[in-house]
Amino acid sequence: MFEEIKERVCLANKNLPQLGLVCWTWGNVSEVTPDRHYLVIKPSGVEYDDMSPTDMVVVRMSDGAVVEGNLRASTDTPTHIELYKKFPQVGGITHTHSINATAFAQANVSVPALGTTHADYFHGAIPCTRGLRPDEVNDGYEFHTGQVIVETFREHKISPDEIPGVLVANHGVFAWGKDALESVYHASALEIVAETALKTLFLNKQSRLSQFILDKHYSRKHGKGAYYGQGKK
Amino acid sequence: MFEEIKERVCLANKNLPQLGLVCWTWGNVSEVTPDRHYLVIKPSGVEYDDMSPTDMVVVRMSDGAVVEGNLRASTDTPTHIELYKKFPQVGGITHTHSINATAFAQANVSVPALGTTHADYFHGAIPCTRGLRPDEVNDGYEFHTGQVIVETFREHKISPDEIPGVLVANHGVFAWGKDALESVYHASALEIVAETALKTLFLNKQSRLSQFILDKHYSRKHGKGAYYGQGKK
Amino acid sequence: MFEEIKERVCLANKNLPQLGLVCWTWGNVSEVTPDRHYLVIKPSGVEYDDMSPTDMVVVRMSDGAVVEGNLRASTDTPTHIELYKKFPQVGGITHTHSINATAFAQANVSVPALGTTHADYFHGAIPCTRGLRPDEVNDGYEFHTGQVIVETFREHKISPDEIPGVLVANHGVFAWGKDALESVYHASALEIVAETALKTLFLNKQSRLSQFILDKHYSRKHGKGAYYGQGKK
Amino acid sequence: MFEEIKERVCLANKNLPQLGLVCWTWGNVSEVTPDRHYLVIKPSGVEYDDMSPTDMVVVRMSDGAVVEGNLRASTDTPTHIELYKKFPQVGGITHTHSINATAFAQANVSVPALGTTHADYFHGAIPCTRGLRPDEVNDGYEFHTGQVIVETFREHKISPDEIPGVLVANHGVFAWGKDALESVYHASALEIVAETALKTLFLNKQSRLSQFILDKHYSRKHGKGAYYGQGKK
Repeated sequence: MFEEIKERVCLANKNLPQLGLVCWTWGNVSEVTPDRHYLVIKPSGVEYDDMSPTDMVVVRMSDGAVVEGNLRASTDTPTHIELYKKFPQVGGITHTHSINATAFAQANVSVPALGTTHADYFHGAIPCTRGLRPDEVNDGYEFHTGQVIVETFREHKISPDEIPGVLVANHGVFAWGKDALESVYHASALEIVAETALKTLFLNKQSRLSQFILDKHYSRKHGKGAYYGQGKK
Repeated sequence: MFEEIKERVCLANKNLPQLGLVCWTWGNVSEVTPDRHYLVIKPSGVEYDDMSPTDMVVVRMSDGAVVEGNLRASTDTPTHIELYKKFPQVGGITHTHSINATAFAQANVSVPALGTTHADYFHGAIPCTRGLRPDEVNDGYEFHTGQVIVETFREHKISPDEIPGVLVANHGVFAWGKDALESVYHASALEIVAETALKTLFLNKQSRLSQFILDKHYSRKHGKGAYYGQGKK
Repeated sequence: MFEEIKERVCLANKNLPQLGLVCWTWGNVSEVTPDRHYLVIKPSGVEYDDMSPTDMVVVRMSDGAVVEGNLRASTDTPTHIELYKKFPQVGGITHTHSINATAFAQANVSVPALGTTHADYFHGAIPCTRGLRPDEVNDGYEFHTGQVIVETFREHKISPDEIPGVLVANHGVFAWGKDALESVYHASALEIVAETALKTLFLNKQSRLSQFILDKHYSRKHGKGAYYGQGKK
Repeated sequence: MFEEIKERVCLANKNLPQLGLVCWTWGNVSEVTPDRHYLVIKPSGVEYDDMSPTDMVVVRMSDGAVVEGNLRASTDTPTHIELYKKFPQVGGITHTHSINATAFAQANVSVPALGTTHADYFHGAIPCTRGLRPDEVNDGYEFHTGQVIVETFREHKISPDEIPGVLVANHGVFAWGKDALESVYHASALEIVAETALKTLFLNKQSRLSQFILDKHYSRKHGKGAYYGQGKK
């Protein structure tokens, strides 16, 4: 079942190394089914070149059980489940350790909004979560990784619609979108924006972007007044 | 109409990702017709691999109306129009968010002339515009982006002939040339020069280039006494 | 003899430039035979594209004599021998001058554990050896390079099982694993982790990783409680 | 005439973009004939993909006249001639603006010897020339570029045999070797060594390499006691 989603999830996972976002097996992409009862995700520790759609693992949202597939699901599956549960508008999720974004995560520093490339995708700084506590790490680590992301968005009063990605402290990137492929797209944008921000901060530590340009660029591509691209088909 | 220009504009746009200047759909190239009544430009939000010359959009300079093509023109079209109007020697324009040049733009720092690679293409620092005011952003943003570029060249008393590119503050690069392909060439030179400058500044914040070497290298390739290359055919 | 090992060692050496770890002939991979009486290693100064399994050199562990092959063994062979002798759990060794890891080696700085990518492969900082003394360089340089690596692990009380790689001061990287291919895998992880650490330190010189997250991520992939990947076959 | 040299020079020039040393037409390689009466060099401003051996230009050493070829010789030809005249052991020369080495040149900073990768090719720091004076730039610029390189080696009492490359202040790289291909090899080593040095200096401004390790590594590959590689054939 879910053949079309498996094909999309497999393709999205194969995009990760092609876009320079992932080496070896260090990333994964999933997509939730339309009824949000299941998610389709990359198997754990398998190389992208060797994967086919039939290797994708179908996991039940309610209890994390594998309901289809001969391989173990990604170890990060509980993080994906928690995000699908708490962010009902999210259809696909990508996890990477892409180098520039991960440097911000390891530095416990948000990616500041410094230019319009950033503003085209992220309506404000891309936040970095707090570090997990020992109890959160030792019991249900991947679940608590999802929880701390949700907590970060709630405490900063930001919407996962407007900031489709996050840095997990000392870890890496989670990004999301309406489906698996859009989540990869946002993970790629996040990496490029992070590299540009890092170089900007080298040239000018005080660099910042005005709120009205941030709003302008974001709204050029998103929401009712959007006029970028070819419009809805 | 303008089949030859459409082919050149399409090819120039496809060069952008090949040269590492652009990811996804984040850039565009145009060329103005010889009578300067029309420009041919990339459609908005379309991927480079999927484009053919017939997808290029023909826009009337006087009012910005699309006169040929089934797709919307790039959202940056009003910027291109303003530059063609005010810089009559310019035949082609490229817009990118290439990473190193954009880092300078986001830092609100001009790319200083620090070496002969720079001097071969740009007869002085590549300026960064001032930031736009809220009123300029909220009404006619893309037109005002063109205006602030023109203002920058006028106020710095520099010629778009001698500095064929600019940084728009917190945004990215516009570069130009005699046609679409030459504008891409200058956008590529600008990105390489920016990367080299950034690394130079890491090694020596006080680095500078003597005016007489700047003049020498620029005049080796440009103007009456030029002796680089194979000469006019 | 050892045809299967020669094929694996040849393939592992060819992986080095493909993974961006080595230019020209600046790296080598070896594997020890199961009885630990011989090692199979790249010939010295030969380009990777030109190599075939029959070019691999078989060297006797007890005295370093070439027992099979028409070419000289890598000049670094005495370092490999010393490591196989003192680290009995190691089956394959890779030597590179990969750029980011070598920058740490040249700076005489260990690669600190700053994130979970690091913790997935290295259970703590990747140490940098002390510099060699003149007497160690002038007589038996490559042997003493092996010795100073062993000394570093003994003095820091760390196990080559838990930190499968090291920086040799002002020189480069040695990494190891259960066979030739796994040693390349660890050399690649070390380079990526080094690049990410370098950029992290630019953003935050005080960055650090909690011990409990280091332990968690390492044990997710290694040892009895490991639950990453598809398990033992 | 000189067909074999033309083939080698053409191949060496085509290697420049393949090795990431040169974009567009920003570099050139030459080789001197065995009698040192002529040099064969890339034509000026021609793209590497479009070149064939018959496009190479033969220039007379005594007066710089083109004696064979339908295209203008590289504008840098007088620099090549001066180096062949004053460095009689040099058989091939490469000029690039490779990014990391050029950053050192633009910063007017020598590439310090910080590790064994450097020591394998360069027996000490790779020097940066002084800047040219206005009179040197305005009359015989390319000739004086050669002269200032020769002056640098004389004043620092270093041999072009032991340091097969140089940075020209605010300009770029000249590297040399026994023929065209070896000069490209050394230009590539210089760029990699420069990138590694730049990152090393970020991590530790005080980094340095002991003289005895510098001597050891250099002599492992060069001179009578060399034991790297497969020996003379």
